Amino acid sequence: AKKEFAPSSPGHSQNMEQQSNKSQKGRRNAIIGDYYRWSRTVPYTLEDSLEINAKAVILDALERFRLKTCIDFKPWAGEPNYISFFKDNGCYSYVGNRHMGGQRVSIGTNCDEIAIVQHEILHALGFWHEQSRSDRDDYVTIVWAEISNANRHNFNSYDDTVSSFLNVPYDYTSVMHYAKNAFQISTNPTIIAKNTKFINLIGQRLDFSDRDTQKLLTLYDCAITSTFLDSCTFDLDDICGYLQSSDDNSDWQQVSYVSSGPTSDHTHLQDSNVTGHFMHFSTATGDAGHKAIFESRLFYPKRDYQCLEFFYYNSGHESDRLEIWIKEYTATSPNGAMRLIRQPAAYWQLHYSSLNAKRKFRFVLHGIKGNGVSNGGISVDDINLSETECPEYVWHIRNFNINDLTYSIYSPPLYSKYGYAYQVSLSKLSSLSLPFNIATYIHLITGANDDHLQWPCPWKQVTVEFMDQNPDIKHRASSMKSITTDPQAMSGSNFRYDNPEKIGRDAIFPNGTAYKTARGEGRYLFTVQELFDRRDFIKGGDAFVLISMKGTLLNHVAQMMIYFDNLNVTSYRLSQ
Amino acid sequence: AKKEFAPSSPGHSQNMEQQSNKSQKGRRNAIIGDYYRWSRTVPYTLEDSLEINAKAVILDALERFRLKTCIDFKPWAGEPNYISFFKDNGCYSYVGNRHMGGQRVSIGTNCDEIAIVQHEILHALGFWHEQSRSDRDDYVTIVWAEISNANRHNFNSYDDTVSSFLNVPYDYTSVMHYAKNAFQISTNPTIIAKNTKFINLIGQRLDFSDRDTQKLLTLYDCAITSTFLDSCTFDLDDICGYLQSSDDNSDWQQVSYVSSGPTSDHTHLQDSNVTGHFMHFSTATGDAGHKAIFESRLFYPKRDYQCLEFFYYNSGHESDRLEIWIKEYTATSPNGAMRLIRQPAAYWQLHYSSLNAKRKFRFVLHGIKGNGVSNGGISVDDINLSETECPEYVWHIRNFNINDLTYSIYSPPLYSKYGYAYQVSLSKLSSLSLPFNIATYIHLITGANDDHLQWPCPWKQVTVEFMDQNPDIKHRASSMKSITTDPQAMSGSNFRYDNPEKIGRDAIFPNGTAYKTARGEGRYLFTVQELFDRRDFIKGGDAFVLISMKGTLLNHVAQMMIYFDNLNVTSYRLSQ
Repeated sequence: AKKEFAPSSPGHSQNMEQQSNKSQKGRRNAIIGDYYRWSRTVPYTLEDSLEINAKAVILDALERFRLKTCIDFKPWAGEPNYISFFKDNGCYSYVGNRHMGGQRVSIGTNCDEIAIVQHEILHALGFWHEQSRSDRDDYVTIVWAEISNANRHNFNSYDDTVSSFLNVPYDYTSVMHYAKNAFQISTNPTIIAKNTKFINLIGQRLDFSDRDTQKLLTLYDCAITSTFLDSCTFDLDDICGYLQSSDDNSDWQQVSYVSSGPTSDHTHLQDSNVTGHFMHFSTATGDAGHKAIFESRLFYPKRDYQCLEFFYYNSGHESDRLEIWIKEYTATSPNGAMRLIRQPAAYWQLHYSSLNAKRKFRFVLHGIKGNGVSNGGISVDDINLSETECPEYVWHIRNFNINDLTYSIYSPPLYSKYGYAYQVSLSKLSSLSLPFNIATYIHLITGANDDHLQWPCPWKQVTVEFMDQNPDIKHRASSMKSITTDPQAMSGSNFRYDNPEKIGRDAIFPNGTAYKTARGEGRYLFTVQELFDRRDFIKGGDAFVLISMKGTLLNHVAQMMIYFDNLNVTSYRLSQ
Repeated sequence: AKKEFAPSSPGHSQNMEQQSNKSQKGRRNAIIGDYYRWSRTVPYTLEDSLEINAKAVILDALERFRLKTCIDFKPWAGEPNYISFFKDNGCYSYVGNRHMGGQRVSIGTNCDEIAIVQHEILHALGFWHEQSRSDRDDYVTIVWAEISNANRHNFNSYDDTVSSFLNVPYDYTSVMHYAKNAFQISTNPTIIAKNTKFINLIGQRLDFSDRDTQKLLTLYDCAITSTFLDSCTFDLDDICGYLQSSDDNSDWQQVSYVSSGPTSDHTHLQDSNVTGHFMHFSTATGDAGHKAIFESRLFYPKRDYQCLEFFYYNSGHESDRLEIWIKEYTATSPNGAMRLIRQPAAYWQLHYSSLNAKRKFRFVLHGIKGNGVSNGGISVDDINLSETECPEYVWHIRNFNINDLTYSIYSPPLYSKYGYAYQVSLSKLSSLSLPFNIATYIHLITGANDDHLQWPCPWKQVTVEFMDQNPDIKHRASSMKSITTDPQAMSGSNFRYDNPEKIGRDAIFPNGTAYKTARGEGRYLFTVQELFDRRDFIKGGDAFVLISMKGTLLNHVAQMMIYFDNLNVTSYRLSQ
């Protein structure tokens, strides 16, 4: 088990209590005392000792704070106090701002997972473990006999003169909660949830729970997130302020059912009793070339890249089209970015479009009737817009069945923008100690560019995200794992990430094409059945795995992480 | 129509633009510029010119800010800038903090309604009208020909260099939106919603919309409300951190159905397709006197009074009991407050308990089996806890039918704590100009104490709240109206609020008892059918009208408004 602890010393405890008497007025905080707060934009550095993969994962974790909370981060520029990430033994942090200059947070070996980094940063921002709350004995039983003396301090609780739970109920699903087997000396649990539904669930390391987010907003008494822009399920009468254009031939309709499909919206695909809504452009009538144009409300970007995510369903003819444009409002040069979606498919599909708006903008959906006979049309649901990077690939697994993973299943071959070809696989493993276990592996495979690439493949990070399909991106807890190719890593007598032509084994694609695949490197995605079942990882039978290969930080330059596809930019005339 | 406008002058506009250039960094506000913000606790005074009823209504409006937003208010104590409520012609306010010392907000004749005061305070906090947003032309059409020249300035919009909509979609249901007939010169509308579902809905004056609240939290970038403590529908596995006691004979069960009733939870009474949950203590088994004890999580009060609200259902025997206690954690003297609920009734009823916790506390529900034969038990759902006053009376109208209001319906006779007897009535009025119209009237009636009371009845405020049954008190928009008795007011040659024995007409209670009732004074509760239908004013066929008679402020002493029933205080032994 990984060590995750928040060190405390008598000296620090004294400080705490002094502060709590001085600075509290009615508000109750995690670690009590405004002294321990950071400003809402926290300066940080990444020390050279960090593993390359850890650096990239830390930056991904900061992005989750920016999307879901009011805490932002900036590279340290001489501020008196800052967080300094480094590699020590294990993953640990102080609790709260200790006013010690560079306050170190260790992201050691095997700590390079996004939710573990989120966990450590939450310590630094002022949170103890959930099971250290003053009221924890109402909710969990600590089995002291199963914990070695040296580790007992990790199960301390803090009374309400130094610790506050901020009027948020005890949260078994907090990313700050220990798992049932934390620091165990045998195979018996060390911490048992009194509410039996949570016995196996405690210890999740996917993402913030909603209550983690709520507590952070309360502790820092703030509301504004940095990168979230919009989420819309089209279930309300005001369709989130989206607009019908008058500059077209027909309208998108807000409907709950189309006879030729879809028969349910995507939002409530799992709740057949609930009638939800989606937007639909019917191509069953009208002439070829007829358009229905649907515009988002106005957005004011802070970055110059955005990710638009939505689900769509095409029950019309293959020639019916959906185009995504942006309208950017500038004095002189409005631009539109265009994507085409052509595939008719009688199920909900997931689509991403990278936008590059630098100023006030809308995105605009053009439904365009083609020249074939249609009984249906194009439907759109569950839009999310954020100032984040889009994933490069969506691996859509229809009729997902865990038992199919007994033998690994493989994604289609993927090409990264660096030219490397790779594949992602999912497997179900099981052992006596971990009876439920879904893992993901990445494999470099032979590809068209191999002769022109650098081998062994240097420092490319593959991120695999098994997507929680909650319709609001802010409430998701996806399982996201990252692996970075290390050109020095060995596998037997070969370099592990050497050219698969040289080190790979023979394999065959479903279409009969032969290729070679290198040995995969893996991470666990899910180790608790209840956690997998609890959230919307499967919806309408389908799973989505989001995959990207990115460059990494050899040195600490945060800007290097900003990457997005170039778009076909087309001029677009605006009426204003 | 009442005048509600936000004056602006060229001088102020210049200030705005200067400020916006100086102080904006990425964040976009209603009126742009941090210069226009108040501190989150706003100082205020009530000037003597205000009507007595207006003063009381203003304090009620401040309470809504404290419950639902992060803005608090304090009586002015010499701060350089503060809001000064006074009575002028109409209801109006400046927009934002103008740094002018006592910044006056007029609550004139007929402005003494809680949502109008909320509206004016939102102006003072920095919001223009919703239809003044820079993007309003996407959402409404202003019919300039129907507006007189003198009033056109009220329909100005502000471009996004001075005004921001804070990334919140256009809100037809905002309390800051004009009604369709605002400032009309004939009977034609002056403002038409482009989304036809909202044509009649715009202009609601019930309470904040959820987006009004969201915008205020964003503008002031804060999260902490002053008086809200908890809301729980018992639909989630963790039952909001509520606890089963081990100091009893059985447990409360989290169920969705009891064969002898209830067959649905209260939360989803209107959504028969959704399966919700409630807590149930079965008295169908066990011995007389057997107990099931259910405790809330811990709360840390800031005031010394709280209101606990919940729905309950008794399908057991009339001798089965529900007791509400509080456990207050102190060094020496824990107290418990007790209420009994005995009435078995095969439907969901609404209950309020005033608590008086001054320190860390829980409330505790004791289900106690009586000595009769039971097939059912006691159920509880939709708990809300806040540091507010409870209403004094709940008028539960079963099988509510608007058409029954064609002839007025009357509440049971009510006694205020001052001894006055009164009755509340509901009526459906209709006229050519206002075809849908539900009004409430209050009537003083003859009572047992009349010989000992002061007549005409001086300065007592009756508040009537037609309750929005949304399970979360923070998301409700109830219709609340207040009337204050004026001992000088005349009705013909009589004092309007004189002894009903002297001025009333004869009437008869349903049980045949004769009494006298004075002429009522009324207010409109609802004037838009769509608004009445849109929210949960009726649930399971039932309506709830909450009624209180309170003292008022003859002088400005905010503390006078703090009032709550005395409780039976019983000692309660704690295990810790």
